[in-house]
Amino acid sequence: MSFVSPLSEPLTPDAIRTSLAQLPGPDLDAAGAVRRRDAELTKPPGSLGRLEDLAVWLGSWQGRPVPRVETLRMRIFAGSHGVTRRGVSAFPAEVTGQMLANFRSGGAAINQLCALHGVDLEVLDLGWEAPTADFSCGPAMTAERMLEAFGRGMAAVHADTDVLGIGEMGIGNTTSASAIYAALWGGGPEAWVGRGTGVDDEGLARKVTTVDDALAAHTGHLGDPLEVLRRLGGVEIAGMAGAILAARLRRVPVVLDGFVATAAAAVLHALDDTALDHCLAAHVSAETAHRAALAALGLEPMLDLGLRLGEGSGAALALGVIKAAAVTHTGMATFAEAGVTAG
Amino acid sequence: MSFVSPLSEPLTPDAIRTSLAQLPGPDLDAAGAVRRRDAELTKPPGSLGRLEDLAVWLGSWQGRPVPRVETLRMRIFAGSHGVTRRGVSAFPAEVTGQMLANFRSGGAAINQLCALHGVDLEVLDLGWEAPTADFSCGPAMTAERMLEAFGRGMAAVHADTDVLGIGEMGIGNTTSASAIYAALWGGGPEAWVGRGTGVDDEGLARKVTTVDDALAAHTGHLGDPLEVLRRLGGVEIAGMAGAILAARLRRVPVVLDGFVATAAAAVLHALDDTALDHCLAAHVSAETAHRAALAALGLEPMLDLGLRLGEGSGAALALGVIKAAAVTHTGMATFAEAGVTAG
Repeated sequence: MSFVSPLSEPLTPDAIRTSLAQLPGPDLDAAGAVRRRDAELTKPPGSLGRLEDLAVWLGSWQGRPVPRVETLRMRIFAGSHGVTRRGVSAFPAEVTGQMLANFRSGGAAINQLCALHGVDLEVLDLGWEAPTADFSCGPAMTAERMLEAFGRGMAAVHADTDVLGIGEMGIGNTTSASAIYAALWGGGPEAWVGRGTGVDDEGLARKVTTVDDALAAHTGHLGDPLEVLRRLGGVEIAGMAGAILAARLRRVPVVLDGFVATAAAAVLHALDDTALDHCLAAHVSAETAHRAALAALGLEPMLDLGLRLGEGSGAALALGVIKAAAVTHTGMATFAEAGVTAG
Repeated sequence: MSFVSPLSEPLTPDAIRTSLAQLPGPDLDAAGAVRRRDAELTKPPGSLGRLEDLAVWLGSWQGRPVPRVETLRMRIFAGSHGVTRRGVSAFPAEVTGQMLANFRSGGAAINQLCALHGVDLEVLDLGWEAPTADFSCGPAMTAERMLEAFGRGMAAVHADTDVLGIGEMGIGNTTSASAIYAALWGGGPEAWVGRGTGVDDEGLARKVTTVDDALAAHTGHLGDPLEVLRRLGGVEIAGMAGAILAARLRRVPVVLDGFVATAAAAVLHALDDTALDHCLAAHVSAETAHRAALAALGLEPMLDLGLRLGEGSGAALALGVIKAAAVTHTGMATFAEAGVTAG
């Protein structure tokens, strides 16, 4: 398999761009094989709806005529944000570290969901004890830090993964995500800011002002999506972007979690509008701007359950649906095998 | 536990009405216990969205302060419909029998989905070899046959069930379901008829005419919902209605599958508008009128995946989400246990 090895040399913005210029497309032979088998299964054509699309998606991005869901992995990227000093979250910044301990001891929602669906879970601490700078008055990260986080995200993708779920943890990071959307797509802070973990009206107003200040502080420097990521993002967002890219290069289909994971995806999409072709949106979250962000990316969410937790929770639920798609596709009898009259 | 035993004596319409007059309500103490624990779990309040509601629903209808999802059962009711002679389905009537064999040998979609989620599957053949009469010109069933099917549905509910999924198989039964909706709620056949397993425009027109003929043939006899069920329904629809009622009496929460299962629920709802309080709609199907039917019942579908297969497939997928709700609720650490600062 030919792709730019993510860690063979120090990662540079140019190396990222080179990878984006070499993205593999879907395996159309595999997709055709999945479609042909689907047409023979004991059900009216099309009657499994989105599950049928999921089987084709799995096959075409795995490059397998028979989709496989044996090795599902969830990667949660954690970071902390200097912008929390502006009072943009309902929770104090130290909760990120406390939640990392909670992930390790198996007490978080994502632990239960991954256990339920047999998903391998790994949480990558991209330096929560070293918060990024407050992006409302200067760049969140140096280029070195952004690239290190991006590279760690790339390295987190095992080539044996059948489907990869992507999620995050980082108090303050919905503000960062909103700033990224506003920088990439315009529309002003109000279009992209929401209540995150549950801020009140004053907290919401502080988030809007913070994003407004950030757009002003970085004006003239937001034309390059990688600069948007460096200036307004966080290490966990850079890590997710790296993982999404590496997954594509390794033919691993990706399920994006919610509002913040989608911002990482949006950076890649702004660099290359085919960069997310291997990605599915697990769900539309309760964070108000998520629906618009998904629409801007052309992603149709699989679930709409009012989630707004992050930490990969929606992606884990979606992995359950993806497993269902694969087991029906591979396990069902054909009309001929079952002696059922086709319509 | 006190309830009218479904099979201690021959079932009568009066016995059904007596049961409906004795429906147990939710266990509010259990619901309160679930809500109190939910508030202590390591997540922002409300951030698990619908999963939190599901945990409360499980607790309140199971009557358990700690929801349980150990014993999940799927019951599929099968019947066949004389109305198929009017050309209302894309598949011939014998497919119902062929699919019963496919269920038994494990080759259908529902077999794979139940296996995936550890759901006990039983398929009840309510007499597919003896089709109901063509309801477009006379009653589909005698009172005896309807009550026998209803009673078999009641008897199919084990009291040890933590959650019951309800589904069906019966070529021609979307026409029957459409006729039931039109009889209960008006609006004319066009409002309730759709393509079912995939009829073409001419088949769709035949379905509309068939339902129109049925409404004319039974005019003046559709004021009693049990008569609607007998005249326009099928044995599998009567069986599902019985199972939904028995589940309520036994404190078993129910997940309804799609368009046809919802018609069985609609009959009970027309008899008593609290009769479905223990029920969730698994999904909104691709059958066009399903969304309106759910809205008429005040049911908010959990999933929207474009399914239109029946056989409990949507209910099985929803059971996966319900399991997720239960395992997060019971398995997550509290703020105090994990040493996480509450917001």
